[in-house]
Amino acid sequence: MQLFIGNKNYSSWSMRPWVLLRQAEIPFAEVMLRFDAFTPDSKFKTELARHSPAGRVPVLVDDGFAVWDTLAIAEYLAEKYPDRQLWPVERQARARARSVCAEMHAGFGALRSHLPMNIEAALPEIGQRVLREQAAVRADVDRLVQMWSELLVAHGGPLLFGKFSIADAFFAPVVKRLVSYAVPVPAAIAAYIERVQALPGVLAWSEGALAEHDFLDFEEPYRTCA
Amino acid sequence: MQLFIGNKNYSSWSMRPWVLLRQAEIPFAEVMLRFDAFTPDSKFKTELARHSPAGRVPVLVDDGFAVWDTLAIAEYLAEKYPDRQLWPVERQARARARSVCAEMHAGFGALRSHLPMNIEAALPEIGQRVLREQAAVRADVDRLVQMWSELLVAHGGPLLFGKFSIADAFFAPVVKRLVSYAVPVPAAIAAYIERVQALPGVLAWSEGALAEHDFLDFEEPYRTCA
Repeated sequence: MQLFIGNKNYSSWSMRPWVLLRQAEIPFAEVMLRFDAFTPDSKFKTELARHSPAGRVPVLVDDGFAVWDTLAIAEYLAEKYPDRQLWPVERQARARARSVCAEMHAGFGALRSHLPMNIEAALPEIGQRVLREQAAVRADVDRLVQMWSELLVAHGGPLLFGKFSIADAFFAPVVKRLVSYAVPVPAAIAAYIERVQALPGVLAWSEGALAEHDFLDFEEPYRTCA
Repeated sequence: MQLFIGNKNYSSWSMRPWVLLRQAEIPFAEVMLRFDAFTPDSKFKTELARHSPAGRVPVLVDDGFAVWDTLAIAEYLAEKYPDRQLWPVERQARARARSVCAEMHAGFGALRSHLPMNIEAALPEIGQRVLREQAAVRADVDRLVQMWSELLVAHGGPLLFGKFSIADAFFAPVVKRLVSYAVPVPAAIAAYIERVQALPGVLAWSEGALAEHDFLDFEEPYRTCA
């Protein structure tokens, strides 16, 4: 099984299935396609076109069969490895996990665009400014805090649905954003952020991101150099 | 089981699970929350807050338990009614169906924003202008045509995965957009569009949309009256 990903420092979408595979100890080969201009004839697009018609990372290729988009990859892995219990076992908890993952999948647009994932960056002053100026980002953060707080209480922690699940992998890139931009959160949420950062899969991805040293202008609205 | 939806003429997200429930002949009660200003104290938001913390339609409420976000609702129904075969039965076809639904769920932003769903509208000249001016919309349409063409050939039609599946429900709102804005497509795609429009669930939703006569300024970038 191969997982095609983008730059680890920037590609929040790629991070999710990679962390999921590592946490679940499912063997896979990583294929990193460096982000580029994304023109149809760019190296990124031509390489990717050989595997996925959607033209985006991540793509999971299992015995030649492409599965793309993070939610579909998560469902595919959950079906293929039922013993890993990637979704919560209980029916309503599983439905709730899918609700919050799908909400993340299509939502949080303000947070995504104003606080792009940038693992190696430390931009607390940008975080302060964005939170002050962008009501939509504050609303996104409030919703995250509300959601995580409810789940941590309902399932007793340490992770969103008790033990590790797809939901934690889905929110891992958001955790990294909150850290990079030093977004203030309540103590219980700060503790969850610490626990996610300490997951072996998240640690390994973050180490990879820090080792890249690949500064890409078009992914950097705030920095001028690394 | 209750399904909370927004205006049928405008709410593309609401249309998906509604069409899915109707096509699968799963009994449900519809609760329509008219779109409004979406301020925290608006009728829409206060009503919805009683059922879903995400604050958006659609929401499925099953015996008091809320499932939100279209993909999570689809998975919930597929699990609860396995005999309806809402996803394709074959493993790879099911994975592919989830890939294209998830791709729709998070993507096609240009098409969404420039050609918003508006079932009662006929805006061919706007469609022409948008296609001429917006390369990103053309790219979204090209991707749809490519995706649907491949699936119709691979599974032999008449719908994307042979018989009706969640995927057709997911693309039903896009079908209505292509019709409202008279977006030109190849013959095989035009035929698929006709078949989706003729599905009883899609017909019933469209009739409801036409019966609303509820012109909402903030959903109307192009018209000044109905």
